[in-house]
Amino acid sequence: MTTQNNSYTLGLNKTPANYVPLSPLTFLERAATVYPKHTAVVHGKIRLSWAETYERARRLASALTRRGIVDGDTVAAMLPNIPAMYEAHFGVPMLGAILNTLNTRLDAEAIAFMLQHSEAKVILTDKEFSGVMKRALQMLPQGRKPLVIDVDDPEYTGGGELLGEKTYEDFILEGDPEFEWSMPQDEWKAITLNYTSGTTGNPKGVVYHHRGAYLNAVSNILGWSMPKHSVYLWTLPMFHCNGWCFPWTMAAVIGTNVCLRRIDVRQIYEVIAAEKVTHFCGAPIVHNMLMNAPAEVRALKTHIVEGFIAGAAPPAAIIEGMEKNGFKLTHVYGLTETYGPSVVCEWHDEWDELDATAQSKLKARQGVRNHMLEGLMVANPLNLDPVPHDGETMGEIFMRGNNVMMGYLKNPVATDECFTGDWFHSGDLAVCHPDGYIEIKDRSKDIIISGGENISTIEVEDALYRHPEVLEAAVVARPDEKWGETPCAFVTLKDNAKVTEEELMAFCRTQLAHFKTPRKIIFTSLPKTSTGKIQKFLLREQAKAS
Amino acid sequence: MTTQNNSYTLGLNKTPANYVPLSPLTFLERAATVYPKHTAVVHGKIRLSWAETYERARRLASALTRRGIVDGDTVAAMLPNIPAMYEAHFGVPMLGAILNTLNTRLDAEAIAFMLQHSEAKVILTDKEFSGVMKRALQMLPQGRKPLVIDVDDPEYTGGGELLGEKTYEDFILEGDPEFEWSMPQDEWKAITLNYTSGTTGNPKGVVYHHRGAYLNAVSNILGWSMPKHSVYLWTLPMFHCNGWCFPWTMAAVIGTNVCLRRIDVRQIYEVIAAEKVTHFCGAPIVHNMLMNAPAEVRALKTHIVEGFIAGAAPPAAIIEGMEKNGFKLTHVYGLTETYGPSVVCEWHDEWDELDATAQSKLKARQGVRNHMLEGLMVANPLNLDPVPHDGETMGEIFMRGNNVMMGYLKNPVATDECFTGDWFHSGDLAVCHPDGYIEIKDRSKDIIISGGENISTIEVEDALYRHPEVLEAAVVARPDEKWGETPCAFVTLKDNAKVTEEELMAFCRTQLAHFKTPRKIIFTSLPKTSTGKIQKFLLREQAKAS
Repeated sequence: MTTQNNSYTLGLNKTPANYVPLSPLTFLERAATVYPKHTAVVHGKIRLSWAETYERARRLASALTRRGIVDGDTVAAMLPNIPAMYEAHFGVPMLGAILNTLNTRLDAEAIAFMLQHSEAKVILTDKEFSGVMKRALQMLPQGRKPLVIDVDDPEYTGGGELLGEKTYEDFILEGDPEFEWSMPQDEWKAITLNYTSGTTGNPKGVVYHHRGAYLNAVSNILGWSMPKHSVYLWTLPMFHCNGWCFPWTMAAVIGTNVCLRRIDVRQIYEVIAAEKVTHFCGAPIVHNMLMNAPAEVRALKTHIVEGFIAGAAPPAAIIEGMEKNGFKLTHVYGLTETYGPSVVCEWHDEWDELDATAQSKLKARQGVRNHMLEGLMVANPLNLDPVPHDGETMGEIFMRGNNVMMGYLKNPVATDECFTGDWFHSGDLAVCHPDGYIEIKDRSKDIIISGGENISTIEVEDALYRHPEVLEAAVVARPDEKWGETPCAFVTLKDNAKVTEEELMAFCRTQLAHFKTPRKIIFTSLPKTSTGKIQKFLLREQAKAS
Repeated sequence: MTTQNNSYTLGLNKTPANYVPLSPLTFLERAATVYPKHTAVVHGKIRLSWAETYERARRLASALTRRGIVDGDTVAAMLPNIPAMYEAHFGVPMLGAILNTLNTRLDAEAIAFMLQHSEAKVILTDKEFSGVMKRALQMLPQGRKPLVIDVDDPEYTGGGELLGEKTYEDFILEGDPEFEWSMPQDEWKAITLNYTSGTTGNPKGVVYHHRGAYLNAVSNILGWSMPKHSVYLWTLPMFHCNGWCFPWTMAAVIGTNVCLRRIDVRQIYEVIAAEKVTHFCGAPIVHNMLMNAPAEVRALKTHIVEGFIAGAAPPAAIIEGMEKNGFKLTHVYGLTETYGPSVVCEWHDEWDELDATAQSKLKARQGVRNHMLEGLMVANPLNLDPVPHDGETMGEIFMRGNNVMMGYLKNPVATDECFTGDWFHSGDLAVCHPDGYIEIKDRSKDIIISGGENISTIEVEDALYRHPEVLEAAVVARPDEKWGETPCAFVTLKDNAKVTEEELMAFCRTQLAHFKTPRKIIFTSLPKTSTGKIQKFLLREQAKAS
């Protein structure tokens, strides 16, 4: 054995010339300097260039600084996908503060909890949500008086009131357009805070850092081969995992952000055509709405649009239907804890030869690690032994890499727990196929155990979605004396559908093993969380009672 | 003022679950796992998949380990662009060793200096270079006996001998195809060593690290919007700044590397068509050769190919000529010290409206920082004050960012000197245009000062290149009693050219200010360094004597 050669460590040190902490803020500065006139943000009649967006972000950072906001403070945002929300993704971290994007569909209690837990010093809030925000502010303890800034969006025509001291436009006018911001001293520094929408218990505050935000923003480009000047439609809320880091991605590709205050199917088709949108993201529910749009609305489409689909396991039928509509979908998967998608169903050219159903089945698998995720495995949660790659043995999904969160804010117990064994525990159950692609079978808590056999509720839902009259479906366990549990389905039918419970069960039996077929089907609308996730715990109670 | 909120630092620590050092090695593992059958490397009749390339790199790492090579050791490679060279870019760093790619055009003295300076423990050498390598090995001091492994490439049909103990193919058979390599413990760790081809004095050893190699590999993708499965032709030597980090880039995009032992214009056009090459890089001299290929060779071209052009300031005439030939060129600029290109002439769509000459003039500017370079400026070298953005005031180019080298091996004085003031000093002289694009005017030592006026030799060369009978041109200072210095041009004419010295001077006067027009033009062939750089110091001596 030779001894270690130290020539490669001596005198080869980090200096400001050869080491700069990674931060996505660099992309905005670059976009504004190199392509100052290129359109950065479109919102109704508003069009902002990269120079203007940069200037507005600097004004915001400066105005916050003048109000005493400093490094490490929290700035909360209760905003839809509008220019102010985009600017906050840069302006807030410019001064070392942390942006906490609030889910605009939450109730006052949840918002009040978050404002208190995050110790928010400033709240940027849109007039549309003033009712909830007003109540939430009233719930804050005495003495806690955050600075409230109202966004009075000219594109919003509904009711509401202005709660705070100033409007956002007036507030940023206080700021210096040439504000001298600085990159973080350390790339391991918090940049944003996202509360998970737990279906029970208090939400947990997921903290992202500059390094991860930078790398995941780049990963989106690599995973999607996103070209320079892509045009991105904001169907995905920016409050959801910071829009999967796409605010920063769009600055890196010097693209154009097309804002949307809400999901309106006709408006989406119109704006795709008008702005020549190239890319968008959405949960299956958004894709489902687009797929089921009236024919005359779908006829507005003029070109192929790339879509990321994630947020829950997408039924193969939705993927197939969207592709028929001229959308090219890439299936991605992740959690709030992994900066949004960190797993991608990478496509293989030879799969193009397969028929549409086979293709959509392959595409419904979650896939493989994206470029910046370093490790992904399906393993036994007790000992972290990877399961065999047989497409059958179920295990939990574990991840590790630079796009795994710093941890949960003020919750070291939960942080340590989810990182046990040096892997992040996702709580999702999956199999690993022989080609290394993982496929989610269920959330740990959703799996049905019937007569000792595991039943993936996703597999049963997939069968239901294949029926042409089914709009939405959710399957949960129903207690059963004989079998322990049996599958119970909740189904929303399309308008004018005629299928009966018996017919739908018979249809399922053509697709599923007998024991996996729902023993009961209830036609109803499905209760959802504010992020569009179906609230299975409510359905479980209903199944139990029925 | 509020006090610092520490919630965002307490309990939010780096763990193996959420922090992994950056290394380009991750891209190979990913390519081999996700696309095992996709073609990674093409070399004549040889076609290797990503699974095979990964296996061969692991065998190499394992075989080296079994011979006692450890973390921090140097492995030298005297190889053309062939599979072994590609594999060495992964196999060597897999065990923590440092790859020193040697310039295959150097003489034995220079090679011996490098082998000694780097303390290379192993040498991978191609039979074609056995003459030089044999002499170099004989020059090494007693007792220094590196392990010599010969590459006996079946695509090489020339002479030479096998110098070492084993051939590369036999050597890697010693290794374990399942070798358990590991990512570096620290991303600030040396990965490769590249000696600069100084025209005088001993070469300096530029050290790259895993972090920089990873980021610059990604930067190539962002800067060029390189899609997945790009097909890259290896016209650029991999020994030159590690092929500008493209070995790692190609693994990240799961592309195909098309090898080339040497620059052969017909072969290049043939292989572009046969392998559907999408991208290639080269110094202006390579592009010049492609542009001046016989018409029947150029007729082989079937599709648009993207080219990076860099290595020296490219004459606008070459850019214009190549684009007429169906190449789409992106001009990039960098130094060995910046991992190859770190500056890119980003194109603006509105420039498409300009005529070809105006376009090629814009494209001949070096441009702006690429995504991973954090700072770029033209400044006064004495006080680092940026020059005005007037396109006229000359200053030195300074850079800073993660794609600036760790430093020079065993040369702390030169390292400190080039990082003075926390910026990397490039030694290149440039102006900065009002749009922030920089344009190189000269190397510090090449500038001509005539009657107190600076003359950019590049500007004069550009004028000469515009003459249709000029193949190559270089301009240097010639001592002059009255003016101090005057421009002296050395020109190689195309076959059958008839232009005289007087006619060429008259042509220059139509393009240049009178004082910039060469006072003397010498028709000759140009002396070049092994990397194709024109050796201006030899021309200066010749100009002085003439």
